[in-house]
Amino acid sequence: MSGELRVGLAGLGTVGAGVAQVLSDHARSLSWRAGRAIAITAISARDKTKERGIDFARISFEKDALALAERKDVDAVVELIGGEEGIARALVEQSLRAGKHVVTANKALLARHGAGLAELAERHGAALKFEAAICGGIPIVKALRESLIGYGISAVRGILNGTCNFILTQMEATRRSFAEVLAEAQRLGYAEADPTLDIGGGDTAHKLTLLTSLAFGTVPDLEGVAMTGIDKVTPADIAFAGEFGYRLKLLGVARRTANGIEQLVHPAMVRARTPLADVESSFNAVSADAGEAGPFFFQGRGAGRGPTASAVVADLVDVARGAFGPAFGRPATELAPARREPPDARKSAYYLRFQALDVPGVMAEISRHLANELVSIESMIQRGRAPGEAVAIVMITHEAQHVAVVRALKAIAASDKIVEAPCMIAMEAA
Amino acid sequence: MSGELRVGLAGLGTVGAGVAQVLSDHARSLSWRAGRAIAITAISARDKTKERGIDFARISFEKDALALAERKDVDAVVELIGGEEGIARALVEQSLRAGKHVVTANKALLARHGAGLAELAERHGAALKFEAAICGGIPIVKALRESLIGYGISAVRGILNGTCNFILTQMEATRRSFAEVLAEAQRLGYAEADPTLDIGGGDTAHKLTLLTSLAFGTVPDLEGVAMTGIDKVTPADIAFAGEFGYRLKLLGVARRTANGIEQLVHPAMVRARTPLADVESSFNAVSADAGEAGPFFFQGRGAGRGPTASAVVADLVDVARGAFGPAFGRPATELAPARREPPDARKSAYYLRFQALDVPGVMAEISRHLANELVSIESMIQRGRAPGEAVAIVMITHEAQHVAVVRALKAIAASDKIVEAPCMIAMEAA
Repeated sequence: MSGELRVGLAGLGTVGAGVAQVLSDHARSLSWRAGRAIAITAISARDKTKERGIDFARISFEKDALALAERKDVDAVVELIGGEEGIARALVEQSLRAGKHVVTANKALLARHGAGLAELAERHGAALKFEAAICGGIPIVKALRESLIGYGISAVRGILNGTCNFILTQMEATRRSFAEVLAEAQRLGYAEADPTLDIGGGDTAHKLTLLTSLAFGTVPDLEGVAMTGIDKVTPADIAFAGEFGYRLKLLGVARRTANGIEQLVHPAMVRARTPLADVESSFNAVSADAGEAGPFFFQGRGAGRGPTASAVVADLVDVARGAFGPAFGRPATELAPARREPPDARKSAYYLRFQALDVPGVMAEISRHLANELVSIESMIQRGRAPGEAVAIVMITHEAQHVAVVRALKAIAASDKIVEAPCMIAMEAA
Repeated sequence: MSGELRVGLAGLGTVGAGVAQVLSDHARSLSWRAGRAIAITAISARDKTKERGIDFARISFEKDALALAERKDVDAVVELIGGEEGIARALVEQSLRAGKHVVTANKALLARHGAGLAELAERHGAALKFEAAICGGIPIVKALRESLIGYGISAVRGILNGTCNFILTQMEATRRSFAEVLAEAQRLGYAEADPTLDIGGGDTAHKLTLLTSLAFGTVPDLEGVAMTGIDKVTPADIAFAGEFGYRLKLLGVARRTANGIEQLVHPAMVRARTPLADVESSFNAVSADAGEAGPFFFQGRGAGRGPTASAVVADLVDVARGAFGPAFGRPATELAPARREPPDARKSAYYLRFQALDVPGVMAEISRHLANELVSIESMIQRGRAPGEAVAIVMITHEAQHVAVVRALKAIAASDKIVEAPCMIAMEAA
């Protein structure tokens, strides 16, 4: 491990340029931490000529990113191309096969192929590091892999997507609709032109899948995530949440239960004035129950140049020091199969909202269907009268079986007194 | 690094027994992370015979802790004796000199002798690790040393003493006096029989000193901490804080300024509904400004068996993997001298409370003395009238020189209309 760590950088967008910048600006202090220098020796990007403020005099340029995996003067490859297949996957696989260390921000690739890639890394004595893949500004991968290891983890919960949290906090502050706030977020650059991966929960699911594996030592199981996005959330539900003493957040939740591991991505009610509930704007946060070591909570910037570049550089320093263990905290061959909690074991308290005609008997009908499914009501709000017109009936249930509540809502929705599909949102511990 | 890591454990109180328990209960998963087994081979404690639920059959017992430093079958010494001199210091020094790795929870020792010990460790190729010394349940040492390293740190703020935060939140909730709440905390075991080190700010200063070194790469400078405890805090000040939209917290603060590094331990006003302000009960928390990587915030359990044992075990796993760099993030010989910010450069906004006779001219007199020192008032509360008797006059100033405010208060206190020493509390950013 003498001599410098020679880095091949694939992808020179805003994050890649940030990584190059940090390695150059802080070369001395980073080499103190790493025990040796870290230098970019080769780069691959779509467009070499674009001005990025980087001096390419000592750096080779490869048109084909895959060439980085073959270069003799590259010890570690930083993959910032993205995508769960194609060139990114090929580059990571070929680099590992060539015994090169890999640092990546590619959550989709790892959520889909993490176990196989971890095995490949170990077989070839290479590091596979991905702090930048989950909330760059929060060192949660390192914390789960290296710090909160004494007593095991029973649950992880996170606000893992800054775009969704920005939209929900804006909807709350302005009482505007999801569509309006999304449009504004797109105008401001807080949301992508195609926001599906964010608002549909897919991005959160990728990150949750990795947190689950790190927390429980299981094979990443993206397909095992039950996923609901935020596009159906209304300002009315956010306001009612406030009246009950809750805030509405898109959470990724992984829990170890008696029957397996439950992975959920869903808008959820979180009790106000708790750490997760208080996360504002585009911040990310993760909480974990770490047994006797206590609950812990991290908050920071999730995405963007600075947080992501910072995470990549921290991983490179670990690689340079030779300080890396197995990708998911235990040998890939020892990762436990993902035992999914059966859907009918899923339980929670729920927030329910019905838009019902203000006519006699409607509460009786709703109550009867809930009682039939053994769903009992903890508290309720019904305000304002509008005889013959639709009013909101809002309630929070005691803990109930998820499938039972779904069945009850289906029966209630069939009533001619109910004018739109009922809304159902889970309550989550903070 | 083949074979097991053999640990000598000095101090078998609640934390030491916790470490032994975790190493035994989670042996397999820890060895996966460490790449090899970790086994306690020798123990030193005051009383061998006390029942601790540990099987000593395979473990040697030393009456004299210093003997652990000499044993051939010990690779790493865990120091849980405590105290900045005496046996703890001798054990750490002798262990490092013998090339043994050291893991310690001893903040006082490191705050006082950290630079020398770090140098000793490096000279002998040994690790010096101390995650357990600062908020055990929060991996802040690792975060500062290994994660938030891309852009440098400009400020660190922490609620570093659970006893003080418990007392302050109890005073707020019950409106009882400091003395009453302290007595209750002692009864409940949340405060020591001699609580001086906690409530006087000394414990926070020890931890802050280490955070400062980790954040700024400077020699630990305990003497450079300006320290004020919480024993003068009144329920009235806590209530007024609430009216202004703040909460009162004992903070450790380290800031890099144009003139040097400022280290403060003091009760401070923190804006309500921000992460630090929301820290309840005996929890600990640390926030840091990490440049382009963004602000970040950690919260968790600070002390007690679980959090501390968890931190010690995480350090042992790093030692077993060979994953350790220099103790304070850069070679001990490269630690920068601690350049203290000159006291007269210290600036802040301040909360001020005067107990004044309700007679004409008192406000004029207070205002004149503040104006003389160029201290201007941002907002003020004066409520209730009691002609001829004492009332509270409470205000928040704009940013002002600390020494100027102190001079103004001295002049004001000399007035015969002021009936007790004025109260002065700094405002802190969240």
